[in-house]
Amino acid sequence: MHAEIISVGTELLLGHTVNTDAALVARELAAAGVDLLFSSVVGDNPERLRAALDQALKRSDLVVTTGGLGPTDDDLTRETVARAAGLRLTLHEESLRRLEHFFQGRPVDDLQRRQAMLPEGCTVFVNELGTAPGCAVVTAAGRTIIMLPGPPSELERMLRTGVAPYLEARSGGVIHSCMVRTFGMGEGRVAALLAGLTDQANPTAATYATENETFVRVTAKAADRVEAAALCRPVVDAIRERLGDVVYGVDVPNLEHVVVAELIARRMRLTTAESCTGGLLAKRLTDVPGASAVFRTGVITYANEAKMRLLGVPEAILAEHGAVSEATAKAMAEGARRLLEGPGEGLGVGITGVAGPGGGTPEKPVGLVYIALSDGQETWTRVMSPPSGGAGRDRAWLRLHASSHALDLVRRRLLGLPMQRVRPNPAPDYAPGTETRATSRG
Amino acid sequence: MHAEIISVGTELLLGHTVNTDAALVARELAAAGVDLLFSSVVGDNPERLRAALDQALKRSDLVVTTGGLGPTDDDLTRETVARAAGLRLTLHEESLRRLEHFFQGRPVDDLQRRQAMLPEGCTVFVNELGTAPGCAVVTAAGRTIIMLPGPPSELERMLRTGVAPYLEARSGGVIHSCMVRTFGMGEGRVAALLAGLTDQANPTAATYATENETFVRVTAKAADRVEAAALCRPVVDAIRERLGDVVYGVDVPNLEHVVVAELIARRMRLTTAESCTGGLLAKRLTDVPGASAVFRTGVITYANEAKMRLLGVPEAILAEHGAVSEATAKAMAEGARRLLEGPGEGLGVGITGVAGPGGGTPEKPVGLVYIALSDGQETWTRVMSPPSGGAGRDRAWLRLHASSHALDLVRRRLLGLPMQRVRPNPAPDYAPGTETRATSRG
Repeated sequence: MHAEIISVGTELLLGHTVNTDAALVARELAAAGVDLLFSSVVGDNPERLRAALDQALKRSDLVVTTGGLGPTDDDLTRETVARAAGLRLTLHEESLRRLEHFFQGRPVDDLQRRQAMLPEGCTVFVNELGTAPGCAVVTAAGRTIIMLPGPPSELERMLRTGVAPYLEARSGGVIHSCMVRTFGMGEGRVAALLAGLTDQANPTAATYATENETFVRVTAKAADRVEAAALCRPVVDAIRERLGDVVYGVDVPNLEHVVVAELIARRMRLTTAESCTGGLLAKRLTDVPGASAVFRTGVITYANEAKMRLLGVPEAILAEHGAVSEATAKAMAEGARRLLEGPGEGLGVGITGVAGPGGGTPEKPVGLVYIALSDGQETWTRVMSPPSGGAGRDRAWLRLHASSHALDLVRRRLLGLPMQRVRPNPAPDYAPGTETRATSRG
Repeated sequence: MHAEIISVGTELLLGHTVNTDAALVARELAAAGVDLLFSSVVGDNPERLRAALDQALKRSDLVVTTGGLGPTDDDLTRETVARAAGLRLTLHEESLRRLEHFFQGRPVDDLQRRQAMLPEGCTVFVNELGTAPGCAVVTAAGRTIIMLPGPPSELERMLRTGVAPYLEARSGGVIHSCMVRTFGMGEGRVAALLAGLTDQANPTAATYATENETFVRVTAKAADRVEAAALCRPVVDAIRERLGDVVYGVDVPNLEHVVVAELIARRMRLTTAESCTGGLLAKRLTDVPGASAVFRTGVITYANEAKMRLLGVPEAILAEHGAVSEATAKAMAEGARRLLEGPGEGLGVGITGVAGPGGGTPEKPVGLVYIALSDGQETWTRVMSPPSGGAGRDRAWLRLHASSHALDLVRRRLLGLPMQRVRPNPAPDYAPGTETRATSRG
């Protein structure tokens, strides 16, 4: 079954909104074994939407639209799809009742009420988080059109509760993907180490770079999920073998999930003291449901006074080395660790640096960040130098990267790995400015 | 000039990556007055990319590709575009020298070297942040193809430094958009208040919902920027008038930028004490360059001990009302305010709640969040109840929304606005569970 996505919304063509919806739908289609060959965007324009639908209905078995189902005048998807499918819109009583429930007895005006007008004979997908229901219709020519709402949280829920069961029965064959996730190695280097693995047909293995990580996606097609997974497994093992300990997980959501899971498994706790990352590390840790079991206290200390008062960083260290220094990061990590209350093992992290765009000096340029980890016995530090060739990574990237380095240090300590990655071979690394030192507790 | 975007990458069709690149390019095209009518995605497949290019070159004057320029085997855009344009690839010496510089004298292998092979006669766009340069070629038929790298930070920089100047000279007419940003009112309500304004042709005004805000985009077309801006202005004024103080800004990046700017303008400082948002509020504040002038200390206190020790929350309050309570939020805000060091006015914010998915009880369900703001004289609290009709907003949404409510309280205090929005008319609100109380300092 060949599918395509049509995302509706002028805001997408003007770049005001990023099309996360298409990615959510694409993932669901892949999981259902549906081949997605096209994905396109049209504005809030009924003629162009109609033309896109007509073209899509010629070449694809399944067309999924996102957006344009809301209560406002430029929400034209319902009407346009109904016309393209040759179906009338009729009032869906249950959806109207849900709207009334949503507005808790207040009157549902005509604009809102339009959302309950759906093509006759459609399969309705309940919107658990918002007002506009989704639906699936089958045209006279046997093509399926699925209409889904635009707000990502509503869409995501509807994909899981309505669309996935609907699709499951209809697809032949399954695509199974494994994502091998790495931190600390550039895409070029990863690709070079995987030479030979990345030119097979089934499963395929492809590298790609995200903002500050490199992933390897292994994808197999097979009759069912078990067989597809079995095809992927040896390739994933080979990738792990070749890349070594920069691989932090396979099919894990992200680095912070891995760190929180490892902390929970060891009943260990973590406390953070952040300067230039300003709470980003704490935010990433607490994005993970259940993080409060292992992360209970963190501080953000831009001010030197706060570093002294909340963390006990000695004034002499700040005076001698400055706030952005290895010694300060170390004292922050050790101070963070002392904030742990109650019994049990714990780790403290300290981050201090220059995130820019202002505040850099020749000695302490934008991008210079010190990261330290203390376990009470030993303290390790890592220095993140300004990116070499590609100077001028922005504030958001520097903060993200610094918080990832901190998570990497924690992961390595928890798993008993070398505190800096062991290079799979002596070829040069893409991040020459990053180094780790183990220092004894001072 | 009609343009279209072709984003290249199987990871986009599998939903592993969100297509932020298309939004970045779209914004640049809009700013240059180029009409973007199509945007599509193809996988790492030279035949389908070629077909998409051929179709695009028939109907559009300008085709912009993103992705597929890297060093790996599935990076096929350069070769495929060159073939579609009927041009040979030749070594671009300056790009090779930049690659050598990027790798700091280490050998540039053949894979990496491919990135310096560009279509003959192209205009090269330097990649200041990565290895793959971009370029623009003009075909024999007079169509323009611009190839840009996939990593968003590299793309964004190249758009600014290379593509914008290239496009500026070529476009006739300008599109100018203003974004009116609101927090605290649903899209349906905003649309109802703007009835009549949203069905004009030039400028157009369109509402849309983002994850937890509603925007109104006003877009005018005119011969030049000044004229287009003049067309937008009265419509923006009318929108402000109708929506009242839920409008937090026009053409501002986001709510946190507004709050930081207002703090800087008043030389006031802010300290945060977060429980369920776990650093997200601090992270949002420090996303803003220069935030360290007004935000210097924050704490994350999941643990009751930390609430007592770092913030001075009385044990009696925690025992009597619990950690998730109005009294605790208030004590946290007042405790946060006491962490401010040095002279000058300052505000303290406290947030405590249940972000889920676990941890809810019948009395204190997931989604119940108390937010408090103290200025040393007075303390205001707001309670965010679990969303009504659409039960079960997820953890990420609840945390985001709670941090936005905190920013909204700060904005209202700084601007001297009522601490809850004044309803433009007595019609019902989409967020019935949100209320603000002013309480005297206890």
